[in-house]
Amino acid sequence: MNPSPDSGTAARSPRTTADDAAFLADFTTMSGFGATEAGGVERQAATAADALTRRWLAEWLRERGFQVKRDRIGNLFGLLEVTPGAPYVLIGSHLDSQPRGGRFDGAYGVLAGAHAIDRVRRQLLSEPGGSAVNLAVVDWFNEEGSRFKPSMMGSSVYCGKLDLETALATTDSNGTSVRDALTFIGELGDDDIFDASGAPVAYVEIHIEQGKILDKQGVDIGLVTSTWAANKYEISVHGAQAHTGSTEMADRQDALYGAALAVTAVRELADRYDRELHTSCGQLTVYPNSPVVVAREVRMHLDLRSPDDEILAAADEYLRRQFAQIEVRANVRIEKRHAHTWTANYYQAEGVELARAAVEDLGLSNVEIRTRAGHDSTNMKDLVPSIMLFIPSVDGISHSELEYSHDRDLCNGVDLVTEILLRLSSGHDLAQPAV
Amino acid sequence: MNPSPDSGTAARSPRTTADDAAFLADFTTMSGFGATEAGGVERQAATAADALTRRWLAEWLRERGFQVKRDRIGNLFGLLEVTPGAPYVLIGSHLDSQPRGGRFDGAYGVLAGAHAIDRVRRQLLSEPGGSAVNLAVVDWFNEEGSRFKPSMMGSSVYCGKLDLETALATTDSNGTSVRDALTFIGELGDDDIFDASGAPVAYVEIHIEQGKILDKQGVDIGLVTSTWAANKYEISVHGAQAHTGSTEMADRQDALYGAALAVTAVRELADRYDRELHTSCGQLTVYPNSPVVVAREVRMHLDLRSPDDEILAAADEYLRRQFAQIEVRANVRIEKRHAHTWTANYYQAEGVELARAAVEDLGLSNVEIRTRAGHDSTNMKDLVPSIMLFIPSVDGISHSELEYSHDRDLCNGVDLVTEILLRLSSGHDLAQPAV
Repeated sequence: MNPSPDSGTAARSPRTTADDAAFLADFTTMSGFGATEAGGVERQAATAADALTRRWLAEWLRERGFQVKRDRIGNLFGLLEVTPGAPYVLIGSHLDSQPRGGRFDGAYGVLAGAHAIDRVRRQLLSEPGGSAVNLAVVDWFNEEGSRFKPSMMGSSVYCGKLDLETALATTDSNGTSVRDALTFIGELGDDDIFDASGAPVAYVEIHIEQGKILDKQGVDIGLVTSTWAANKYEISVHGAQAHTGSTEMADRQDALYGAALAVTAVRELADRYDRELHTSCGQLTVYPNSPVVVAREVRMHLDLRSPDDEILAAADEYLRRQFAQIEVRANVRIEKRHAHTWTANYYQAEGVELARAAVEDLGLSNVEIRTRAGHDSTNMKDLVPSIMLFIPSVDGISHSELEYSHDRDLCNGVDLVTEILLRLSSGHDLAQPAV
Repeated sequence: MNPSPDSGTAARSPRTTADDAAFLADFTTMSGFGATEAGGVERQAATAADALTRRWLAEWLRERGFQVKRDRIGNLFGLLEVTPGAPYVLIGSHLDSQPRGGRFDGAYGVLAGAHAIDRVRRQLLSEPGGSAVNLAVVDWFNEEGSRFKPSMMGSSVYCGKLDLETALATTDSNGTSVRDALTFIGELGDDDIFDASGAPVAYVEIHIEQGKILDKQGVDIGLVTSTWAANKYEISVHGAQAHTGSTEMADRQDALYGAALAVTAVRELADRYDRELHTSCGQLTVYPNSPVVVAREVRMHLDLRSPDDEILAAADEYLRRQFAQIEVRANVRIEKRHAHTWTANYYQAEGVELARAAVEDLGLSNVEIRTRAGHDSTNMKDLVPSIMLFIPSVDGISHSELEYSHDRDLCNGVDLVTEILLRLSSGHDLAQPAV
């Protein structure tokens, strides 16, 4: 049996103006690490800017009585034991950013989680009565995947979806491994997290929407019900290196021409499925990339996302045929080097309902959303019941220095996750089936 | 009056099997610097491999009595003074290569020039009688332009077409300047070359064809009569950085999509002019180049070449219209950042005729060729009468590790330039108008 939505109203978030001010001040401080002139951050995984942000957070947590731990893939945890032996609820997101990324993507959710736990701690001190769970905040290592692929590396290893040694051996474009980069910044740990109490019993993540739905509709909170399905491909187009001036056009095997046709095919594929398919090529590297040399190889990453698994399967087949035509037209060979596929799937309904009740009790407007972007909760929901929440992004801009969310929305989000943690502390059990 | 073609027959090249063997042995030694596993060389300008090749050549020259000098842009000269006060004839090409380039492109011409001068020296020793000219070999710095742009940098500065300080301040993709790179390898000189005798009176260059004409027709030597015209553009496609997953397709300003359409337009433009227009994009760089970020900017180098100035002008106008359409279709802005234009122009007829006479006296077959590739002689011919010669390239492959020329053709070329230097030594004056 699920407690009725009303059961949480006794534990209303003790929001004060001082709480808001403290959160916003900390967010401003944190956004200074790796800050860019245009108001974003450049804080790729395991860089100096990422390290400084993590050290600042670790210090913040220690000052408030959290125990700080790092696991073997560099995930950073702050544990607050309230009731010895009780299971943990985990909340978090990621502190790393895209190159010239925004300051909200990920980092907001980590700091919101830390503040929410701290507010619950103070609430429990002022109204003793025990808690059904202990609380922990997490910064998942390398969610963005821009420096080291794949994205969501830390949570993937944590959830057993990616082999630890494979992840540690992954190198960036300079040949530096994850292991060396984490060791260099002092963030490679060997802690067994939650060893006394097993895995956490629930996971909560709040994030900016990175889309326009909330901003356009003027809604406060997005309740994420499911993910879009995604296909990611690594492609190599193979040609033959030649002189751009003297080689007859008919003799060329121009890998960049083949790649250009592929980029165009991928982009125009989206037009076949009105708003139900997002396609992109964001990374493309030319070899040898000299102005007077016909390219011998182009490597590229393609990214296809849809709410509908069948659309994605049809898109995959369409591209296969297009690529076969491009091989003939450009006299190149197209090799699919790697492919990752995530099917569309659902967050536990119990979590959505708990969140909906908390949102409504706080007087916030809400709408259900299917997330197009991947998040660490995409991994965690396959391990434990998980709640994923969005606050509005102005104009939906993200992975950009222009990314922006209003202070009011940032503070609403902290209130909401505080409220959700209070409900879980008072015994709301997500592992119980929904009504 | 021009001497009759027969006047040179008295000075036939004293070719011996030992000369061929010595040249081929030296060529093999030289090809070891920066050698790649696939038989090419990686010897970009002012890298360690380039430096080693230059030092080896300088030592070779000193051992044979040449005076070695370096000028302020790192051109390396080997001067052999035969007749004090006489003007110089200069012969050479370049030792630098494209990334994973071939071992013949440029380097063959420098070594052929050095061997030819050495053979003339021995001839003059065995048959004293004086020489109308002194002789010098040159390795022009950074002909390829892959590391530092523009290409033909050393000869452009030498000919006064490129400002010395501008060239020295040019940086590679790591921010290293030409000045620092040349200083680091000890190849930045301060010598005034030919100070006693003014500028050279003629320039000779032999090079692999980098095209198929000689190889297909089974002809020994190409007499280069003129260059193709060339337009080179640096383009930036400007979009807006965004999330590949969550950003609506209609809201994207995808710089890479715009660039892909531009690459395709450039390639397909060539199909409008059967074999009379070569077009290419060999260098394209994406910013920020992350798999999950829509590109904010793409920079690319376009390369258009034609034997006909009017075709090139029409192609330029066609691209201008195409780019305007692409700006609308991809919701991007295309900026032409730089453009260089070379019109088609001619080598001095006197030089072509001198070379033709020498070729025929040596019993080699020949054909006139218009060069599509740029060479240092393209610069030098605007300063002094210049002779440009080609030997066959197997299958026309160049700017590739697969580049190949047969030993027989290499040796024929050394014979030919030796013969040409002997004719110039015996008083054939290219500055005289052709009959």
